[in-house]
Amino acid sequence: MEEQEITVSLSTQKKEKPKSDELQFGRIFTDHMFILDYEEEAGWHSPRIIPYQPLTLDPASIVFHYGQTVFEGLKAYVTKSDEVRLFRPEKNMERLNRSNDRMCIPRVDENLALEAIKKLVSIDKEWIPTAPGTSLYIRPFIISTEPYLGVAPSRSYQFIIILSPVGAYYEEGINPVRIAVEDEFVRAVKGGTGEAKTAGNYASSLKAQELVSDKGYAQVLWLDGVEKKYVEEVGSMNVFFKINGEVITPELNGSILEGVTRSSVIQLLRHWDVPVTERKISMEEVYEAYQRGELEEAFGAGTAAVISPIGELAWKEEKLVINDGITGEIAKKLYDKLTGIQYGTESDPFEWVEVVK
Amino acid sequence: MEEQEITVSLSTQKKEKPKSDELQFGRIFTDHMFILDYEEEAGWHSPRIIPYQPLTLDPASIVFHYGQTVFEGLKAYVTKSDEVRLFRPEKNMERLNRSNDRMCIPRVDENLALEAIKKLVSIDKEWIPTAPGTSLYIRPFIISTEPYLGVAPSRSYQFIIILSPVGAYYEEGINPVRIAVEDEFVRAVKGGTGEAKTAGNYASSLKAQELVSDKGYAQVLWLDGVEKKYVEEVGSMNVFFKINGEVITPELNGSILEGVTRSSVIQLLRHWDVPVTERKISMEEVYEAYQRGELEEAFGAGTAAVISPIGELAWKEEKLVINDGITGEIAKKLYDKLTGIQYGTESDPFEWVEVVK
Ligand SMILES: Cc1ncc(COP(=O)(O)O)c(C=O)c1O
Ligand SMILES: Cc1ncc(COP(=O)(O)O)c(C=O)c1O
Repeated sequence: MEEQEITVSLSTQKKEKPKSDELQFGRIFTDHMFILDYEEEAGWHSPRIIPYQPLTLDPASIVFHYGQTVFEGLKAYVTKSDEVRLFRPEKNMERLNRSNDRMCIPRVDENLALEAIKKLVSIDKEWIPTAPGTSLYIRPFIISTEPYLGVAPSRSYQFIIILSPVGAYYEEGINPVRIAVEDEFVRAVKGGTGEAKTAGNYASSLKAQELVSDKGYAQVLWLDGVEKKYVEEVGSMNVFFKINGEVITPELNGSILEGVTRSSVIQLLRHWDVPVTERKISMEEVYEAYQRGELEEAFGAGTAAVISPIGELAWKEEKLVINDGITGEIAKKLYDKLTGIQYGTESDPFEWVEVVK
Repeated sequence: MEEQEITVSLSTQKKEKPKSDELQFGRIFTDHMFILDYEEEAGWHSPRIIPYQPLTLDPASIVFHYGQTVFEGLKAYVTKSDEVRLFRPEKNMERLNRSNDRMCIPRVDENLALEAIKKLVSIDKEWIPTAPGTSLYIRPFIISTEPYLGVAPSRSYQFIIILSPVGAYYEEGINPVRIAVEDEFVRAVKGGTGEAKTAGNYASSLKAQELVSDKGYAQVLWLDGVEKKYVEEVGSMNVFFKINGEVITPELNGSILEGVTRSSVIQLLRHWDVPVTERKISMEEVYEAYQRGELEEAFGAGTAAVISPIGELAWKEEKLVINDGITGEIAKKLYDKLTGIQYGTESDPFEWVEVVK
């Protein structure tokens, strides 16, 4: 593939930046966006950074009807010494292409996509918030734009990147959440699209999420769609249980999203000689460990919260209060190390960080 | 709810209409479209018919990321005496609202939606093709428009209707198709979104569809996502088997779309005193009936093709050639009756037709 030059057209009107105590998640967007077009004959072409602006799309565009789309989510962090850093962004681009394969979307050039992220972030660098725990959320996504009502892969696409300054996930440091195990609704099943980061998986999760929020739970813990027995993942996090000294996480089985945080957690635990296993784990097993007093910790892992300790797990009629509802030792250590690497206060033994010039 | 007046703003530039022998499916759109807006405070408001035009949407709109969307598909037919007719449109609007419930989208006023369809069709009446088997495809759909990257139901939506003149599904009368039973990929599972008409179900079907088309099959026959044993439905049709005089169709189980054609077929068969049963049916059972010589017919039923006889069913290593690959008697009779009702050449015993004034 030929090297493609990213053209830049700067915004003349700069928007007002939010105050750091007003930051939420994903509601405010920066001054610029990146776009790359695809047509069958031309392939991916015309990479460009332009002022943030609405998309203009035919109402028959496939994305509106058949949801042929994929996305990614990662963050840019700024260090005390004003260095802008990404955390394993190449992993997100690899996953984007795996999602593309599943959704019949043509692969993108991962190097070009990475360059686009870096260039866009550096142009909107002033938008990266600096308060502790804040960051710039990066959302690359691909939409199918062919105006055609037949159920078939689109013949045209747009790859877009937008940026959103986001607040700290935890207002006052890492804090345990309450999670409800979902045993009616299913997010994904073997043979479906669970391992792809695609719109439909999230659309199908809304109902269950809505029902548990009403009961005061932060998120749903999904079980496998076949037997409704084995643990899969939380809304937007992979999940880990520490049972009798061993850390266990559900193995990748086709219906779980392969999280970048998940793989980093596994690597760090191995590095620290903490036993860690990827395998099937049923809720029965978790519950039995709990009853024996051996369920020492449970936590989610994902880009948004990094590590999210689970203080309470509601399952059927049971409420499992884990580690007295307090953040566990391993969860805390992982959180400190990962955020330390991201914000440049900890050493980076695996060279996960990529500096944006 | 207050009665809402649909405002009309006519297009000044009329597009050229396609010749009837150039008609395909879903590639050409008429001069006008309908839009209805929703915001949390105002509810659904501002129903309007405007010239067909692109949508302008923030790139952060939920539909692009989390696919919170539903749609419908029905047709308008013109009779020899120039009467414009819809087939059970209220059924589609009921289903739209059932899909809305599943996808956490606010319900629409079914009467207003029906009125919108009729008004739009009558304004673009000249676009309804008149050659045998042609029709005007009607695509109502709802998209989530809030610019927000959190995974949560949108607080704003657009309900849109577009129209597309479509050719006859069969070039030379009803004709059997070759279908492949899918035993790797899964379209939908109990607890998922299979019974809703929502984007993600179709996105997840693309890969399997692509693989079987390469082998010369028209569509995929989906099995249940749990045991991969029971027949569910075909790409965009419900499915029926005639075994030893009895017509069997998979029962509605939460993962199958409840087709309007399916319900009409069942009603007609009962009216004709043909035994018809809705129940679980496994591919083993179909295969065993085939081996005993008792699989007399198989056909799909859906708005696009009305009735689609299955001439060959590929399952694992087996190829079931059904009724010598010729259209069966029941399939033919259903096709003739249903299209006869639609085009006004047959009596309409159940008052399925709604005339557009
Ligand atoms: C369904 C799901 N699982 C897990 C994750 C965690 O993945 P990552 O660590 O790459 O953010 C996410 C979020 O991206 C997700 O959406
Ligand atoms: C998945 C699916 N099943 C079945 C059908 C048939 O439904 P109907 O008869 O209402 O067109 C359709 C088409 O609408 C469909 O998309």
